[in-house]
Amino acid sequence: MDYRALAQKYDTPLYVYDFNEVAKNYHAVKNAFKARKSLVAYAVKANSNMSLLKLLADLGSGADCVSIGEVKRALLAGIPSYKIIFSGVGKRDDEIAEAIQKDILYINIESEAEAERVELIAKELGKVARVSFRVNPDIDPKTHPYISTGLSENKFGVDIETAKKLYLFAKKSPYLLPVGIHFHIGSQLTQLEPIKEASAIVAELAKSLQKIDIDLKFFDVGGGLGIRYKDEKTIEPYDYAQAILSTLSGTDYTIVTEPGRFIVGNAGVFLTRVLYEKQTASKRFIIVDGAMNDLLRPSLYDAYHEVEVVGKNGDATLADVVGPVCESGDFLAKDRLLPKTEHGDLIVVKSAGAYGFVMSSNYNTRPRPAEVALEDGKDRLIRERESFEYIIEKEIRFMV
Amino acid sequence: MDYRALAQKYDTPLYVYDFNEVAKNYHAVKNAFKARKSLVAYAVKANSNMSLLKLLADLGSGADCVSIGEVKRALLAGIPSYKIIFSGVGKRDDEIAEAIQKDILYINIESEAEAERVELIAKELGKVARVSFRVNPDIDPKTHPYISTGLSENKFGVDIETAKKLYLFAKKSPYLLPVGIHFHIGSQLTQLEPIKEASAIVAELAKSLQKIDIDLKFFDVGGGLGIRYKDEKTIEPYDYAQAILSTLSGTDYTIVTEPGRFIVGNAGVFLTRVLYEKQTASKRFIIVDGAMNDLLRPSLYDAYHEVEVVGKNGDATLADVVGPVCESGDFLAKDRLLPKTEHGDLIVVKSAGAYGFVMSSNYNTRPRPAEVALEDGKDRLIRERESFEYIIEKEIRFMV
Repeated sequence: MDYRALAQKYDTPLYVYDFNEVAKNYHAVKNAFKARKSLVAYAVKANSNMSLLKLLADLGSGADCVSIGEVKRALLAGIPSYKIIFSGVGKRDDEIAEAIQKDILYINIESEAEAERVELIAKELGKVARVSFRVNPDIDPKTHPYISTGLSENKFGVDIETAKKLYLFAKKSPYLLPVGIHFHIGSQLTQLEPIKEASAIVAELAKSLQKIDIDLKFFDVGGGLGIRYKDEKTIEPYDYAQAILSTLSGTDYTIVTEPGRFIVGNAGVFLTRVLYEKQTASKRFIIVDGAMNDLLRPSLYDAYHEVEVVGKNGDATLADVVGPVCESGDFLAKDRLLPKTEHGDLIVVKSAGAYGFVMSSNYNTRPRPAEVALEDGKDRLIRERESFEYIIEKEIRFMV
Repeated sequence: MDYRALAQKYDTPLYVYDFNEVAKNYHAVKNAFKARKSLVAYAVKANSNMSLLKLLADLGSGADCVSIGEVKRALLAGIPSYKIIFSGVGKRDDEIAEAIQKDILYINIESEAEAERVELIAKELGKVARVSFRVNPDIDPKTHPYISTGLSENKFGVDIETAKKLYLFAKKSPYLLPVGIHFHIGSQLTQLEPIKEASAIVAELAKSLQKIDIDLKFFDVGGGLGIRYKDEKTIEPYDYAQAILSTLSGTDYTIVTEPGRFIVGNAGVFLTRVLYEKQTASKRFIIVDGAMNDLLRPSLYDAYHEVEVVGKNGDATLADVVGPVCESGDFLAKDRLLPKTEHGDLIVVKSAGAYGFVMSSNYNTRPRPAEVALEDGKDRLIRERESFEYIIEKEIRFMV
């Protein structure tokens, strides 16, 4: 990638995604499950750019959505409704109603109260809602506490006993049709054992439901496949698939996977230019034009992203790469060995394809960056940089 | 405040600001310094809504800005250029140029490299840039590490020796006019001693500059006055002013203060509705329609905000108030004693006027909330709720 040419053409800060890499990652997951009927339902929340969704739609991907906005995005991008899942712990009434009316594949239900609301709304609409229940297998996924979701202390899913009750409730209801079972123990998983353990527990439950005539079609194993940010040992999709399938012998469920970070994480970079360097008594700072409002992960999760000064070598000393936002929490990288930089030098922040742009804000009245796609050696704009006028549009007209 | 009527009229999630309270807080700071010439330069980053800025402009406030976007907001709101300051560790060339051309009061410079760039750009424009230098007095402000800025390990300001060099550099340059001296040791300060200490150090420096014929007009003490979120002991503006003025006897500097949180923090609330409750084996969750994308402070800083269920009493038990975003880090309050709630109940999250809406994002394709002002008993919309169409506008047209 000629980062300098891209920065020149589109300015900085900038997100760049390699669509060929995205396609490769999609196929890796899809192929890992080729022994079975499967649906790869891309987790839209990781990166919801419309052109990216269009690419995935064309590849045959489905979509795992966590808001009605994400469902609308998926549909607009050309993902058919029968490949769309609506998940999440908190759904508004209007979101549930719209999901039912749009006839998506199923709604992932995460609590008893939600089951009751979905039933009520389906009844009001005179429809049958296809549902699955998210089971919380109480397994420690060994990831960051903020993205760990499979412990009973988390807000996600229901325990095994509650799940059984809910499947019976759904079976009895004329407005609910249980078609799937779902679990998701966390994001950025790098160990196979917790996934296998969770899958075994949920498979056991699915089989016990079959004995009471609740026949499910979809075994939804969630997402969470980790990627390498630094030196993490990651899980190969094939091993991942084998671990899950080993718990499912004697069944013919369609496997649903919900990869997000795995598909886009390492397919994207964030480009930012050096404004100037600053040496204080105790630290060297490289101050750049990108900030926490553009890429929140370092501040929010203390996440590690590789950084590299484009085209520069030479003696490296320790430095923090920080943005212009007025908070000490505004940093992109800490204590990295980096060569001396000058005004205008370009820095690449790697692994920025997932949970990058989607978490960006206008904090400090900073316009959000543009997004660019690379495909077969060509680059194209897929989201325009925001302007000052756009940022204030929804408030200026009310200023009297 | 009739929160229910507001939620009914404007829907939830919703930000509501009491403009009378904002005015009261502005006057409290202004009056505390009435023994001196003073400029209250509101820190726009805390809450940059255009109508709020207009209110402050009408009261006579100036603006402390940290991006050219904030400078433009201040000007559009009617704050005159001679009351506008441009601060921040990282300024782009085009931002510096525009600030000089708009003839603002002064640019707060935070490093040697920035001083050189400001000089270069002023020279190119054939102008003289009024500047102040931010001195880092190396004082521990005893606040959250992310909003602590006055230690030498922080990216902000320059040490005393560097400051002296920079004032000499500016004095010699035909393109720089040093008019002020600035410090800011952190945000949400609740102790007077660190402020007084810092002020004394910087006053000493200012006096020593006077001896070499560098006469400054503005003594800029930054912001940082804390507010009560829970049970913090806060500093009275009068005591704050006295502490600072006690270090300035024998001088006649105009005092510049940059309060943000103090002006708006407790003048705002965030309203959110209950979707449903959920009881797991180990925890009670109240799931609401507001989330970390709307109000990031709890997730990012582990910040405490008072929460209250409108119009409900009765037996309270411990609960977490959490949003619909698919992260365990998505919470608004943890382990609070709250009564049993039902679908549709309204929850008020207090002290949400500062660093609330300005840090909001579209994460999970969630439209950002509306903002409403209350003034003299009347309510009015000051920022429209975002629509799905608005969110995808800048990318949909590039989907091919």
